[in-house]
Amino acid sequence: MRNSVYRGLQRAYGYDEVALVPGAITINPDQVDITLSLGDKSLEIPILASAMDGVVDPQFAIAMGRLGGLAVLNLEGVHTRYENPRAVLDRIVEAPPGEITSLLQRIYSEPIKERLVGERIQEIKAGGVMAAASATPTTALQFGPLAAEAGADFFVVQSTVTTARHLSRTYPLLSFTELRRGLRIPLLVGNCVSYAAALELMETGIEALLVGVGPGAACTSRQVLGIGVPQVTATMDCAAARDHYFKSSGRYVALITDGGMSTGGDVCKSFASGADGVMLGSPFAQSQESPGRGYHWGMATPHPALPRGTRIRVGTRGTLEQILFGPTSLTDGTQNLVGALRMSMGMLGARNIKEMQQVEMVIAPAIRTEGKAYQMAQGLA
Amino acid sequence: MRNSVYRGLQRAYGYDEVALVPGAITINPDQVDITLSLGDKSLEIPILASAMDGVVDPQFAIAMGRLGGLAVLNLEGVHTRYENPRAVLDRIVEAPPGEITSLLQRIYSEPIKERLVGERIQEIKAGGVMAAASATPTTALQFGPLAAEAGADFFVVQSTVTTARHLSRTYPLLSFTELRRGLRIPLLVGNCVSYAAALELMETGIEALLVGVGPGAACTSRQVLGIGVPQVTATMDCAAARDHYFKSSGRYVALITDGGMSTGGDVCKSFASGADGVMLGSPFAQSQESPGRGYHWGMATPHPALPRGTRIRVGTRGTLEQILFGPTSLTDGTQNLVGALRMSMGMLGARNIKEMQQVEMVIAPAIRTEGKAYQMAQGLA
Amino acid sequence: MRNSVYRGLQRAYGYDEVALVPGAITINPDQVDITLSLGDKSLEIPILASAMDGVVDPQFAIAMGRLGGLAVLNLEGVHTRYENPRAVLDRIVEAPPGEITSLLQRIYSEPIKERLVGERIQEIKAGGVMAAASATPTTALQFGPLAAEAGADFFVVQSTVTTARHLSRTYPLLSFTELRRGLRIPLLVGNCVSYAAALELMETGIEALLVGVGPGAACTSRQVLGIGVPQVTATMDCAAARDHYFKSSGRYVALITDGGMSTGGDVCKSFASGADGVMLGSPFAQSQESPGRGYHWGMATPHPALPRGTRIRVGTRGTLEQILFGPTSLTDGTQNLVGALRMSMGMLGARNIKEMQQVEMVIAPAIRTEGKAYQMAQGLA
Amino acid sequence: MRNSVYRGLQRAYGYDEVALVPGAITINPDQVDITLSLGDKSLEIPILASAMDGVVDPQFAIAMGRLGGLAVLNLEGVHTRYENPRAVLDRIVEAPPGEITSLLQRIYSEPIKERLVGERIQEIKAGGVMAAASATPTTALQFGPLAAEAGADFFVVQSTVTTARHLSRTYPLLSFTELRRGLRIPLLVGNCVSYAAALELMETGIEALLVGVGPGAACTSRQVLGIGVPQVTATMDCAAARDHYFKSSGRYVALITDGGMSTGGDVCKSFASGADGVMLGSPFAQSQESPGRGYHWGMATPHPALPRGTRIRVGTRGTLEQILFGPTSLTDGTQNLVGALRMSMGMLGARNIKEMQQVEMVIAPAIRTEGKAYQMAQGLA
Repeated sequence: MRNSVYRGLQRAYGYDEVALVPGAITINPDQVDITLSLGDKSLEIPILASAMDGVVDPQFAIAMGRLGGLAVLNLEGVHTRYENPRAVLDRIVEAPPGEITSLLQRIYSEPIKERLVGERIQEIKAGGVMAAASATPTTALQFGPLAAEAGADFFVVQSTVTTARHLSRTYPLLSFTELRRGLRIPLLVGNCVSYAAALELMETGIEALLVGVGPGAACTSRQVLGIGVPQVTATMDCAAARDHYFKSSGRYVALITDGGMSTGGDVCKSFASGADGVMLGSPFAQSQESPGRGYHWGMATPHPALPRGTRIRVGTRGTLEQILFGPTSLTDGTQNLVGALRMSMGMLGARNIKEMQQVEMVIAPAIRTEGKAYQMAQGLA
Repeated sequence: MRNSVYRGLQRAYGYDEVALVPGAITINPDQVDITLSLGDKSLEIPILASAMDGVVDPQFAIAMGRLGGLAVLNLEGVHTRYENPRAVLDRIVEAPPGEITSLLQRIYSEPIKERLVGERIQEIKAGGVMAAASATPTTALQFGPLAAEAGADFFVVQSTVTTARHLSRTYPLLSFTELRRGLRIPLLVGNCVSYAAALELMETGIEALLVGVGPGAACTSRQVLGIGVPQVTATMDCAAARDHYFKSSGRYVALITDGGMSTGGDVCKSFASGADGVMLGSPFAQSQESPGRGYHWGMATPHPALPRGTRIRVGTRGTLEQILFGPTSLTDGTQNLVGALRMSMGMLGARNIKEMQQVEMVIAPAIRTEGKAYQMAQGLA
Repeated sequence: MRNSVYRGLQRAYGYDEVALVPGAITINPDQVDITLSLGDKSLEIPILASAMDGVVDPQFAIAMGRLGGLAVLNLEGVHTRYENPRAVLDRIVEAPPGEITSLLQRIYSEPIKERLVGERIQEIKAGGVMAAASATPTTALQFGPLAAEAGADFFVVQSTVTTARHLSRTYPLLSFTELRRGLRIPLLVGNCVSYAAALELMETGIEALLVGVGPGAACTSRQVLGIGVPQVTATMDCAAARDHYFKSSGRYVALITDGGMSTGGDVCKSFASGADGVMLGSPFAQSQESPGRGYHWGMATPHPALPRGTRIRVGTRGTLEQILFGPTSLTDGTQNLVGALRMSMGMLGARNIKEMQQVEMVIAPAIRTEGKAYQMAQGLA
Repeated sequence: MRNSVYRGLQRAYGYDEVALVPGAITINPDQVDITLSLGDKSLEIPILASAMDGVVDPQFAIAMGRLGGLAVLNLEGVHTRYENPRAVLDRIVEAPPGEITSLLQRIYSEPIKERLVGERIQEIKAGGVMAAASATPTTALQFGPLAAEAGADFFVVQSTVTTARHLSRTYPLLSFTELRRGLRIPLLVGNCVSYAAALELMETGIEALLVGVGPGAACTSRQVLGIGVPQVTATMDCAAARDHYFKSSGRYVALITDGGMSTGGDVCKSFASGADGVMLGSPFAQSQESPGRGYHWGMATPHPALPRGTRIRVGTRGTLEQILFGPTSLTDGTQNLVGALRMSMGMLGARNIKEMQQVEMVIAPAIRTEGKAYQMAQGLA
């Protein structure tokens, strides 16, 4: 302090701490453009579903594709470990809270069947939609070509923290440059949260970057490891790297903010922070179409020695179509996410996602500031 | 962060985060001047009641006018959709919580009867007080002249976010300049929260500006759309625009802070932030005279596809006269708002609203700072 | 914001937001000097008891004086309005919560008996201790001489906000300079919170200044009027004025922080913020000797039209001696306040109050920072 | 404020307010080096157990040593006051909450038996592990040589606040320089929190510094005395002093952050703040091996006149081995602390503790930022 040589830490912000500020122009919601380009393909709505077993199975992926979005199937989850994942999911959903982590640890120790990788992707393609599948860095070189061969439109490589430079004495470094060259389909990689890591990953030739470490509802990385960056700041920092990379290379890499959003307001703030797309888990786990039947769990939960997630109950609150497009009678922001994005862009005067990335945002803690009156009122209810 | 090109977001403040600081002069409360000028008219007390169906009907407007204030009747609410709004309000008040939003969606889909617009205004005028009525930008050109013809003293155009430049391919832009020219009565327009938007709206010739997006107790715009600016900062920014416009044009446009206030302390902070008047919803919904019988609901609640508000129960706690002028035995700041404003101005040494806009304000979160002792004491009660 | 001309508000701090930092020296607690000089007199311990009817009556004042401190008797409370205040206090203590404010409003409308002013002071003096009595600015010229005549050692003039310049058309300005000249005893005046107001009051010749507007447990000024400054900042600002006045005039005016403290830690922080003494209400209301029998209430509570306080139950937790000097088995900081001050000064290396005013203080919100572990543990209890 | 000469206080941070940020490199967890050097000895894992009677007895110290860490035995606790401490601990564990502080005050008034000092250390050494024992500054000169003679490998001198310059008229100053010279074993001294105090203590020749005043779960120093610095800032400031001292003297003094950590995340943040080792109380009190059987209490709790701690129930949640190395099914970060440290260092790209001290840390309040989604989900559970 008085004699300290220390100068200070930077502040990072999350969704609940910021708000968007309308300016001098407004636009009709039906006139805003929200398409997302991923490599040479594009999505009608800039929304992806997380590669989590409680959220995405082939049926869910078909429903999501038909509504204009994209669901990512986890190639290291129950769908490739078990012939009949339905029965396994039932056991997860029905386990009592005290036994869930050890049950997940057992279930996810079953080996992956290579044959099922292709079959699951073909099930999705049979629905007439684009397919996306994910693996971790250690299995990416094995599953990537298999997925592409089976007809996948996108391949995703994802771990809690992924960098272009992983040091290991036990196994060789995964070269994303090499992986990318061997694939004929766009490659999405994550997760990362910092400018430097984002830049190095983009330089490997990937088409999209997933942003976010540990902000989601089903993840306890921050408690266990101390690691975690609130999504608004993580997105802003990686967006700065994307803009810098675009200026220097002429190649535009899509930024997808992954996790931590639970309402339309959160989704809007991700775009205002610089995202080109968003990836959601909890909100979709609440759909009638999701395999978790109202539950979901983080993919780090089954770690045998150090589980970092919990199964949480989010409930089933509507169809996927209602969650994306309404109409709804819920007023808490959890349904009609696309309608909310369009209306918010309209009120903020943003004609497209690029303009939405430029709207004004202020720091304004949600609960403390405006909560009193509401709480007073509720107290009387 | 370390390599980030990002520089930082500005902090915005709400009522619970600031406090007023007495200085070197004090004044007797009965000597302060609190009148509000709106165009060529003036109000004895600088307080308006919100154009919300649970708050204002013609009878309430008469009571409010007789006490020196001004209530705004919503020309797109139940009073112009239904011959007998009483029965409709009863259904709203009696609906169970789970059904309220869909009921409101149905009730507000009934078409507006143009004939009732004039009748409702005449009911107010028959009470011997000034009348004010509001419409949204899409109906303003239709209802404005009707209201003026029926004898309205003020016309209000209001939507969640209103700008002088609205882009639409489906319908022509509402020109406030044109609307203003066609009316012989003062025009109040809102809502806005930023310097630039405020300036452009004032330049259209309006008499008053309504400030505030989404801060009220019955509004969930922030959760649904991510949009919302705490009222202290919104008022300060728009007041800066008003002062700049006054200096450059010589015309003084009244600034009315709208929403989010629940106590006398909040009202005082609005003036200290730069407001010339305040518009209140929840505090008046608690009066015996309000049509909502202890309930009220945001005017965005009935949106068919994306409702952004809830019906909340605020209870009935006193007469409108008690809420405005006391006497009261309540010590929570919800009654005798005018007395509180006068006493606060006295303790702060402000002889009039203009001086009240200059008093010192500090950032001082209410609950965390001084709450402990109180909570300790309560814990023992 | 982006175009705003507004530059920012200053942050004010309260007890729960700061902490004291030990340095490179420590001292034995029994070697620190804590005396307080007030004019030509001095107190063994730098602690006063508030002029509140639930805290101080003549018997309490005697007990307090014998322990080395000073209790102030309110000359406008029940003790001068009623021949037998005990019966009146019983009614206050036994009233149900819903009726308390209107009961207080009735009780305090009883006229003050001038004769009782002198009698109450003589009761205190009969105990062999110094006596202090307080009045508001409107009655100060009447009661000051009466108090001095009856043998009072100190006269206190106190209202929520007191300035050297009060503007009124209805009654003449109280000149503190004149009042001071007419009294032969030290004059204590308050309350104030700002540098400028403090400076002007000191220039009238008073011996001590009371600092604090609305921070106490029994006061709701902030909710009702928006007025209130957290005590750490208020004390720091007035201490800066005191130091400036001392430099320019050579006269040292004692600064007494009044209200808002509930633990030994809060008391220590007042001194570290610049106080020469502290005035406490709630902590003493918890003593067996206090007339409120475990209750107390703010002196603004009985205001007929705009009450700004509540009766709160603090419970009876020990003798006055235990509260001041221990020993205690309570670990929450509410007892042995003098022992805590001495031990804190020892750990901070402050040999006297003047050095305690210089110790390092940091901003460190109490509950959020270190509270988790404790709460976790409690959760298991 | 406006006229204030006051310039501002520095902000201090605790564990719940910061988070660690992954960068551009990652490492396999099994390749990181986490040894801690203390003088001429070294520990396999950089973790010490606090000298608290509910945490450490000779049996616990043996278990801890066999797992690669170091437990410190309190030479002024029940183990040297009582022949049979088990019976005494039983009484502490079984006392009802209302009686615990006075019971502790009685139990700790029993005189220390010098003979037991050596015996307890020999009990630990008989287990084949290194032994560490602690005393306060007033007894250090007496117990230090006794401990060394009995075979202790480390001597610890610890009080709430310890400085190289203690002023007392009643007893002579403890010279750490002299104490150090007389011992043949490494000397660990604390606690301190500031740059200046840390520097002066290191200059006396000690081998390690304990950092932290009042942050632990079982300590109420902050409430009672106002004293306390959140651990992240305290560690950063003392680490700056250590680095400065190393540069100027060439001697590296180990910094051990002591107290306030309850999860693996907190432990990781201590290292990222600059610690070389950590000392834990509450987490180990939860082990089957700890003598407190699920309870523990601060060593300032038994102070006869001013107790500053409480007995808290933490529960028994696993073996010491599980707490340190897992495997675990708990996802809250309380078990497998060493695994969490290794995994965190891997994700952050830190090959050893020195590199871990350099990782990026941001201010990111845990609960407010990411908590909403989780709470929403829980609410439905």
